Amino acid sequence: MRLVALKAPVTDKPRADDFAVINADRPACPDGGVVARVLFISLDPYVGSRLRGRHMGEPAPAPLDEAIPGAIVGEVVESRTPAIKEGDAVHSMNGGWAEFVALGEADCRRLDRALAPLSAHLGVLGMPGLTAWAGVSQLAKIEDGETFLVDAAAGAVGGSAGQIARNLGAGTVVGVAGGPEKCGLVEREYGFDRCVDYKRDGWRDALRDAVGDPAAGGGVDAFFENVSADMATTALLNAKPCVRGVLCGLVANYHDADQAQHPLNAGLLIGKRAQLFGLVVYDFYPRWDEYVAEAAAWLRDGRLTIVEDRAEGLDAAPALFEKLMDGRNIGKCVVALDPDA
Amino acid sequence: MRLVALKAPVTDKPRADDFAVINADRPACPDGGVVARVLFISLDPYVGSRLRGRHMGEPAPAPLDEAIPGAIVGEVVESRTPAIKEGDAVHSMNGGWAEFVALGEADCRRLDRALAPLSAHLGVLGMPGLTAWAGVSQLAKIEDGETFLVDAAAGAVGGSAGQIARNLGAGTVVGVAGGPEKCGLVEREYGFDRCVDYKRDGWRDALRDAVGDPAAGGGVDAFFENVSADMATTALLNAKPCVRGVLCGLVANYHDADQAQHPLNAGLLIGKRAQLFGLVVYDFYPRWDEYVAEAAAWLRDGRLTIVEDRAEGLDAAPALFEKLMDGRNIGKCVVALDPDA
Repeated sequence: MRLVALKAPVTDKPRADDFAVINADRPACPDGGVVARVLFISLDPYVGSRLRGRHMGEPAPAPLDEAIPGAIVGEVVESRTPAIKEGDAVHSMNGGWAEFVALGEADCRRLDRALAPLSAHLGVLGMPGLTAWAGVSQLAKIEDGETFLVDAAAGAVGGSAGQIARNLGAGTVVGVAGGPEKCGLVEREYGFDRCVDYKRDGWRDALRDAVGDPAAGGGVDAFFENVSADMATTALLNAKPCVRGVLCGLVANYHDADQAQHPLNAGLLIGKRAQLFGLVVYDFYPRWDEYVAEAAAWLRDGRLTIVEDRAEGLDAAPALFEKLMDGRNIGKCVVALDPDA
Repeated sequence: MRLVALKAPVTDKPRADDFAVINADRPACPDGGVVARVLFISLDPYVGSRLRGRHMGEPAPAPLDEAIPGAIVGEVVESRTPAIKEGDAVHSMNGGWAEFVALGEADCRRLDRALAPLSAHLGVLGMPGLTAWAGVSQLAKIEDGETFLVDAAAGAVGGSAGQIARNLGAGTVVGVAGGPEKCGLVEREYGFDRCVDYKRDGWRDALRDAVGDPAAGGGVDAFFENVSADMATTALLNAKPCVRGVLCGLVANYHDADQAQHPLNAGLLIGKRAQLFGLVVYDFYPRWDEYVAEAAAWLRDGRLTIVEDRAEGLDAAPALFEKLMDGRNIGKCVVALDPDA
């Protein structure tokens, strides 16, 4: 079989040229596990940090040896557990950029093919969607009529967060994204009330217009931070008293030097009576099925939209990943290995 | 009558010499208000910021004109409201360093003289106690058996926070304070399990010993921050996952230059799944009577201890305030104007 590995260790933001497609043995089926033929590979921003050994203490992959780690949806071709049958569709966070992966039973969630297109389990029903749901519904606890702000709003997490906030009662949903194409997508496809383009002059004034001036009784009730401490500070400066903020990601800084600081001003937090919640989606994996049940209904009635930036074939993965690292992707990055799946 | 005013505007940490005791007219009784003879004046750290016009947007007092602002307990000598009678004991946050103060009815809380010594309404039953209660019980929501950490533990807020945490079920209560005298007070009088002296070499190791190593299943469940973003970072580094932290004060930085930053690392907040709560006690003034009812029972059965650093007479206020500004006070700073009260 074929897989994608690093040519050499990376110390900076990975580029397409850092990867090689190589041949490898198809993995053996572990006791109590399965081998799955990979149908879809998820490309996610955290993988950029992980390739440098800097994500949540997890090991970096060995160059020239191992498939790049990542979430996958696959079809089981061999099983040594009674819980999963050949032909079952499964999702795993512990897959990789390869044609076949070996998975323990505990690493798989079986998927209902009738519920949604299988690749949706990497996006709005997958880890990005679960992340958004956890932050919006379990931490920020959005309430009816509130004003919700999220950045990286065209991304898989940000786009889901705004739609979920709306579905759970938010009155005004505002996004921040870079460039007219992304902002257009967020407003048209995701149905945000407004998406502010941070690459335009005067965007801070536009943001204040969109959320309302806190000095005049307006402002953000809850925000979801994906980008940087600077952006979180912007949210706080536009916030109502007692704002709730979810700190989810610091994408702008994933490739900083070691020991990077992402400073939030404690004085501003006190003055705003802010409540901040650090979010790590791992903590919510036990509730994945609960989320999927809720979100599948939204998908069916059109209140959650799938937008993918899709590449076909393993060879196309490195270039799409470079696009993701540069923030040039539009929607959830998925590599499809089987055009018929 | 006599009052204490600033000699000139202050731009740095106020010293005793910055104040003068001057004669002034006794204030007239406002419609719907009272005049109170001041029995006790509360000296609080926030007044240092307020004197420089830098506290929560409130105006600085005019030099040579107005009494230094502050909380007081007084006895009503004249009333033009049916809700308050001559002879009533009242507390007000809007008093001042003066022998008599004029107060609107809405600025007073009537006190029950049988409940506790009157000066306690400036300390454990006063704004510092209410602040501690709000953070521990309403924001951090301490639970049975948890490990609680608070700094400035010998101060009026910190000492109350640790005792209240214990009363509400905390299993281990750890303080941080400066010097052996303060640490001894915290352990002996306030009954903390341990108070770590941050002026000693190796105090960070001592703190980790006291709260337990997070890598070995120990660590802080909830903390109450009074001092600085640096100390909050220390708490976070010694915290269990999902730690709750109250951001209450930044005493170490009250006298910084304008635009001072108090940086908390957003990456650390995410990694720890921290929940942070900015606390401004004003928001809890409507619940003061509820707090006093709960805390008076603790006072009666000895589970809340009154420790005062007391000065006698208006002339002694400036020196005690300097001591407070330098952090040399032990317990709640109170100026007693009537030795028989």
